[in-house]
Amino acid sequence: MIKVGIVGSTGRVGTLLIDDLKNDKEAVLAAVHVFDKLEKSVPENTVVTNDMKELMQSVDVVIDFSAPAATEELLTQVVEHGIRKPLVIATTGFSKHQQNLLVEASKLVPILYSTNMSLGVAVLNKLVALASKTLADFDIEIVEQHHRYKVDSPSGTALTLAEHAARARDLDLDKVRVSGRDGDIGARTKDEIGVMSLRGGDIVGRHTVGLYNDGEFIELHHTATARNTFSRGAIKVAKWLIGKEPNLYSINDALGL
Amino acid sequence: MIKVGIVGSTGRVGTLLIDDLKNDKEAVLAAVHVFDKLEKSVPENTVVTNDMKELMQSVDVVIDFSAPAATEELLTQVVEHGIRKPLVIATTGFSKHQQNLLVEASKLVPILYSTNMSLGVAVLNKLVALASKTLADFDIEIVEQHHRYKVDSPSGTALTLAEHAARARDLDLDKVRVSGRDGDIGARTKDEIGVMSLRGGDIVGRHTVGLYNDGEFIELHHTATARNTFSRGAIKVAKWLIGKEPNLYSINDALGL
Amino acid sequence: MIKVGIVGSTGRVGTLLIDDLKNDKEAVLAAVHVFDKLEKSVPENTVVTNDMKELMQSVDVVIDFSAPAATEELLTQVVEHGIRKPLVIATTGFSKHQQNLLVEASKLVPILYSTNMSLGVAVLNKLVALASKTLADFDIEIVEQHHRYKVDSPSGTALTLAEHAARARDLDLDKVRVSGRDGDIGARTKDEIGVMSLRGGDIVGRHTVGLYNDGEFIELHHTATARNTFSRGAIKVAKWLIGKEPNLYSINDALGL
Amino acid sequence: MIKVGIVGSTGRVGTLLIDDLKNDKEAVLAAVHVFDKLEKSVPENTVVTNDMKELMQSVDVVIDFSAPAATEELLTQVVEHGIRKPLVIATTGFSKHQQNLLVEASKLVPILYSTNMSLGVAVLNKLVALASKTLADFDIEIVEQHHRYKVDSPSGTALTLAEHAARARDLDLDKVRVSGRDGDIGARTKDEIGVMSLRGGDIVGRHTVGLYNDGEFIELHHTATARNTFSRGAIKVAKWLIGKEPNLYSINDALGL
Repeated sequence: MIKVGIVGSTGRVGTLLIDDLKNDKEAVLAAVHVFDKLEKSVPENTVVTNDMKELMQSVDVVIDFSAPAATEELLTQVVEHGIRKPLVIATTGFSKHQQNLLVEASKLVPILYSTNMSLGVAVLNKLVALASKTLADFDIEIVEQHHRYKVDSPSGTALTLAEHAARARDLDLDKVRVSGRDGDIGARTKDEIGVMSLRGGDIVGRHTVGLYNDGEFIELHHTATARNTFSRGAIKVAKWLIGKEPNLYSINDALGL
Repeated sequence: MIKVGIVGSTGRVGTLLIDDLKNDKEAVLAAVHVFDKLEKSVPENTVVTNDMKELMQSVDVVIDFSAPAATEELLTQVVEHGIRKPLVIATTGFSKHQQNLLVEASKLVPILYSTNMSLGVAVLNKLVALASKTLADFDIEIVEQHHRYKVDSPSGTALTLAEHAARARDLDLDKVRVSGRDGDIGARTKDEIGVMSLRGGDIVGRHTVGLYNDGEFIELHHTATARNTFSRGAIKVAKWLIGKEPNLYSINDALGL
Repeated sequence: MIKVGIVGSTGRVGTLLIDDLKNDKEAVLAAVHVFDKLEKSVPENTVVTNDMKELMQSVDVVIDFSAPAATEELLTQVVEHGIRKPLVIATTGFSKHQQNLLVEASKLVPILYSTNMSLGVAVLNKLVALASKTLADFDIEIVEQHHRYKVDSPSGTALTLAEHAARARDLDLDKVRVSGRDGDIGARTKDEIGVMSLRGGDIVGRHTVGLYNDGEFIELHHTATARNTFSRGAIKVAKWLIGKEPNLYSINDALGL
Repeated sequence: MIKVGIVGSTGRVGTLLIDDLKNDKEAVLAAVHVFDKLEKSVPENTVVTNDMKELMQSVDVVIDFSAPAATEELLTQVVEHGIRKPLVIATTGFSKHQQNLLVEASKLVPILYSTNMSLGVAVLNKLVALASKTLADFDIEIVEQHHRYKVDSPSGTALTLAEHAARARDLDLDKVRVSGRDGDIGARTKDEIGVMSLRGGDIVGRHTVGLYNDGEFIELHHTATARNTFSRGAIKVAKWLIGKEPNLYSINDALGL
């Protein structure tokens, strides 16, 4: 069994990771890093610690859904204290210094870094780029939908999909993105990319990228049916990462895309 | 065979009406009203005239997809010149005087007035009102999509659907309609109704009204697959209108809704 | 606060009812009926009992997702032992005797009986009947989708939707239902109703009823996003049932359909 | 302007080719091959001939949507009579001899051969193969829909999509394809690929390939909105083919896939 350590175990995805590992046939929870105390119950022999070195020494691979300060401590153990464990990192909001540290650490241990651990979304990004490039005269419109409590718009996933679509056509998304239409809008311009946000109910996440032309259209769709899409994806890529050469990997590498 | 007269025969729907009547088993084109000359070929015995009275006297029922001035002439024949023929009217943009004339004429002949002759859309409006009222705590979001050349937004059909949804909850659509979302929008308010417009390709018309709650959602969808949805709907209600008592009917009356 | 009692508390929906009541602002769990022992933790003052009379005396309303034998005991308390509490019953598989008992009990207390407590599905059934009847020359096709472990097909909900569609056209579903197509099938017959089953992933439940005609189509769709759609629906109708006259009600009564 | 010749000009797609070329800005109809007489009106200077050599000598590129005998004549002009023109061929049902002739001719002139000239479908096949391979533990279900008059099932396009999905997983489609589900079907097997056919209305063609897993699913969808998807695709690849080296090309080559 692969021994997994979690950094960020009290967060939303960290909590789900604990549950998902209970049902996994190849991996098991071996250690969790907490600053304070852990409310979630963990299996009996799990190491619960605020000592990052102890966590790393107890496991085969670390999954990190935490905050920049905790990730910095994790990377520092690799770069300065000689700890050599594969790292799956999903934390966002790094400073320049922290980004450099990430690159440094990836020369010593294999690191998979991705801000979206959904395998389906990773594949969808790839498909969108391919379709956008190949069907270059198709109009692109994106619709994303989330639950009624989401306070920002569009979703990060929708923006990433839009960026894949735009980059495949050498377009600058900031210049072509449209987030609403009302009134005398005139005919659609060739390059614009609509990114419309719907809100309602308890939708975990739905994204559709449509490509429309005379005579035909294509729609590429992703639905997250459960909030643990991200935790499960992280566990899957963690298994893949073990035994790899030191390097900075993306989720596409794990998927062979 | 029911003899049909067309007013507005050179317009988009008028042209389709001529084609559709060629294939109809119960109705036949008997007369067309034109101001100038008719480019579209019509069956040999068709009366082609710029005399509204002659048109009306040649047919069992009139279908009018024209402009307010022509419709006014049509209604004047009923009110002032004693012509008694059922009228299917789809013209928009009436003046107050013309609206009054419509009401006056409907006391003398049966008139079915509707600005959208699609049977499916009429049914969808009814379903939306029922769902909106019954599922009063579901969030409502509407998405409409049309071809890349449509210059206004949202579509008239989307607005009508939104009005049915709003009215069923005693909401004022002007106050609750949202046509785009971008940035720090905050949590969704209970009463807002999103009406988002997509543009692209040659889409004739797609409308989805979604109702979203914790645990479940409903989506009510209509697609127009061909531009003659409106001409076929008009022919269908024209057949229904023959023999009815003088009155001002809606498409819902023809559908038994 | 409305005091709710649960019969069938160890079942799938019963377990969800316990959770949902923890978060409800108007209702609270007051008693659960168990034959053996309850694994799920309940609030401190909850009555946990295998005595049906004690359960009923501790609550304002009973929600029953159990098996016929337990429901029979529940109904017997009403008919023979003078207990007078409103009952929400979702149990299936009654014998003739049990059905009669249900009717007898409903003369003494208000009973809402429904085998599908989803409000959205109840509304969809109504919309499907209305659309099927009004758009009588549209072809009807139904697609249902569930998770990969579902062993029977089509789903009960799909069959009920199909029955609503068929009955609205005076059709016998057994004669017109089609569950697959392969090979030289010939042109579609006017009356047939396709009911196709998809299986895969962890889909809780998706149902689409499509109505297709020349020029346009309508699709009426329901998705269950979480397994507690049924428990929440039951709690909602339980609140509605309190204070009603003795009678046998359906979920449509609670929804005002 | 590119001069286009049409073989099979009286067929369904041939007729649409004549119309589409009237509106094209880079290509123009120069010649049509007919056995008998052409009912469709063509521009004044168009060569209308039953002499295949004359047709070929009048044009820059030939588009062939005909029958095997006519295509054989076309290929014979290349192989035996020294005519050197690029050929776009969409005819189906070749004999072994005719297939060999196709290969022979492709050593002398560039030939693009494809039985489905929709660019969108070509891209979708590619995306499906990629997704099927990368997301190897997702369950695959395909739904295709066509108008009520289609007499066979599933559609050729659905089978091709299913083959792309199966081949990417080293599966034999004949062994894993499921075309209906009814009764006690048991849990879904890992390898089965559902290919369900819906029929109704005037649907030109809708295809959805869904990939479903715990926590998420992807749906890849194509709709043909007009019957001239194929004629437009053929014109587009014809323009691409001019100036290419002799070879047997697929539509994927034209799309750079």
